[in-house]
Amino acid sequence: MSDKDIYREIQKRWDTVAKPLNSLGTFEDMICRIGTVQGSIMPDISKRAVIIMCADNGIVEEGVSQCGQDVTAEVAGWMGRRESTVCRMAEHAGADIIPIDIGINMKGSPEGVTDRKIRRGTSDFLNEPAMSLNEMRQAVKTGIETVRDCRDKGYGILATGEMGIGNTTTASAVCAALTGIAVSEVTGRGAGLSDAAYERKLEVIERGIKLHGLRRTSDRKIMQDLKSASDPDDRAYMTEQESSITDASGQAERALSCVGGLDIAGLAGVFIGGARYNVPVIVDGFISAVAALCAERMEPGTKKAMIASHMGKEAGMAYVMKELGLKPVIDAGMALGEGTGAVMLFPLLDMAAEIYRNGFRFEETGVEQYVRF
Amino acid sequence: MSDKDIYREIQKRWDTVAKPLNSLGTFEDMICRIGTVQGSIMPDISKRAVIIMCADNGIVEEGVSQCGQDVTAEVAGWMGRRESTVCRMAEHAGADIIPIDIGINMKGSPEGVTDRKIRRGTSDFLNEPAMSLNEMRQAVKTGIETVRDCRDKGYGILATGEMGIGNTTTASAVCAALTGIAVSEVTGRGAGLSDAAYERKLEVIERGIKLHGLRRTSDRKIMQDLKSASDPDDRAYMTEQESSITDASGQAERALSCVGGLDIAGLAGVFIGGARYNVPVIVDGFISAVAALCAERMEPGTKKAMIASHMGKEAGMAYVMKELGLKPVIDAGMALGEGTGAVMLFPLLDMAAEIYRNGFRFEETGVEQYVRF
Repeated sequence: MSDKDIYREIQKRWDTVAKPLNSLGTFEDMICRIGTVQGSIMPDISKRAVIIMCADNGIVEEGVSQCGQDVTAEVAGWMGRRESTVCRMAEHAGADIIPIDIGINMKGSPEGVTDRKIRRGTSDFLNEPAMSLNEMRQAVKTGIETVRDCRDKGYGILATGEMGIGNTTTASAVCAALTGIAVSEVTGRGAGLSDAAYERKLEVIERGIKLHGLRRTSDRKIMQDLKSASDPDDRAYMTEQESSITDASGQAERALSCVGGLDIAGLAGVFIGGARYNVPVIVDGFISAVAALCAERMEPGTKKAMIASHMGKEAGMAYVMKELGLKPVIDAGMALGEGTGAVMLFPLLDMAAEIYRNGFRFEETGVEQYVRF
Repeated sequence: MSDKDIYREIQKRWDTVAKPLNSLGTFEDMICRIGTVQGSIMPDISKRAVIIMCADNGIVEEGVSQCGQDVTAEVAGWMGRRESTVCRMAEHAGADIIPIDIGINMKGSPEGVTDRKIRRGTSDFLNEPAMSLNEMRQAVKTGIETVRDCRDKGYGILATGEMGIGNTTTASAVCAALTGIAVSEVTGRGAGLSDAAYERKLEVIERGIKLHGLRRTSDRKIMQDLKSASDPDDRAYMTEQESSITDASGQAERALSCVGGLDIAGLAGVFIGGARYNVPVIVDGFISAVAALCAERMEPGTKKAMIASHMGKEAGMAYVMKELGLKPVIDAGMALGEGTGAVMLFPLLDMAAEIYRNGFRFEETGVEQYVRF
């Protein structure tokens, strides 16, 4: 059956459940989409995990966070011992925890955290690219391979999470670079910042984007600018960029490597892996969403395997969800990270799946099915 | 301790959990509010139930629904046998089901449904008031008593649900009467209606509101109209209404009895009971929300015990939530009724409560608490 056929078959079965048509709203669509990705009209989400990419960001040296880089290793350690917030939630949701050290700034990895370290944190992107293109690609590959391994172990659905002090800064920078939206529009206060520190964060992102030639304008705008640029420097930059402008994948790779993070690159790989290996992947908050956007730019069509969970508090979230055509069902101003919002979706999906699979049906009743208008 | 002190104590304890401040967003506020209602800094939501008020509406005879009144008894029967959609969800959420026949149009009550029938359905409100003031008050009392009984049995939190063909019509009518918002703004298509049937529904509600002199204008507007009314009929009506205009409680009682339903009145009682007996009550969708609005109008301050769950698909929901100062955390375009959205909140509250009670704390770590700015 084609994807469309599977979607329709699932929808048809939904309509036999003794309730008004479409009355479980987005949850009905989610079950249809999960089935489509799994290639089954009886989707199975019983075995699930949350993949948590942990990495440090050199940009923290510029004072964009209330915490130092050492907190990343500390919290990853809690995850290794299954103590952090997402671990308690995942236990409740029956989800396994897969914390991965993809770039924590420490020698070795915390106990209980899988060592896939690519380097000990990124560079301060005001000095040089956060990482090389090659390192970025290795991180993406790590994410893809992690999903392949999970698929082989029988996981039916995966959630995404991250831990990395400074990663709202890198996510905002990548988001601004890829969407062309103003930095101030897509940048929030992360885990909490004073007014002065927030101003500093905006300035750091602006400078990073300028330094690495990541234009915060839409492709169309860049095309117009190319024609009218009068500043010789700008013109030189734009000529250099011309090839990548029409190449969304190259643009995403450059943004990720110049101002992104290893956690975001790793999660982008998880989303790509989800689409490749037919495993639906739940988007968490802003950082995870930016990774999802990168994945879709790098491998168009990947978004078919993405399931949105919550809207999150960070300013750029709504833009990214809109661009990916995703509709989060939880909106509670959460900003915890670790995958906590994604994990919260599990019990809601369980309830919807239970109704889909075993719900009371019109054929068992004396009532006629509702008619679609 | 005062309510304010309890709220602050709970907030202070939240801040000791090893995560960014307020990062569980609305869920932190919900736990604070639940504790405040229960009068405890360690709120207990382990024993929970969903109270489902079932009743018929005479207005169905006017063709405002795709189904006939017999479907109410049918679905209530499924609830009695614990088969309907909300029952499967409640089982997953560890919640008991308390379906109550407060006015099903049948002799006796379905097995497994508590018989608190006040009358066999309401009257067609285009002919006469849906019910008498006295019957409406009996229904409210039934709701209050149900919560008292639940409190005595140790329930720590209750969800609300309803079943009653035609009750989006009665809910929209009451909503328009109480908020002064245009009927078309607060009326949706319920379980599904053709364009023609939807037009009919709007017309029926308009006529009902006019017939029973329930002005769809704000109190202030009515006061102005009183001064400037030139139509003798209008002036007579307005004089008659003068006492109840300044009396929000009387206005709610009139709207409920003239164009409301026994299910809505019963749920209004549940909300009042929640506030009186210190049991937090979860609002479900539009019908439940309108009952909550009636409760707040009849007994101001009652809203302190209300917890919002989902936004629902019906058009008037957002207005009612705004008026009650409530913020639903689930937004999935659901329109099922039965309390399904309210029940979905339970596992999310469980996760939040687990983090609040047993979450990993900064004092157990090498990391300092975040600072509030």
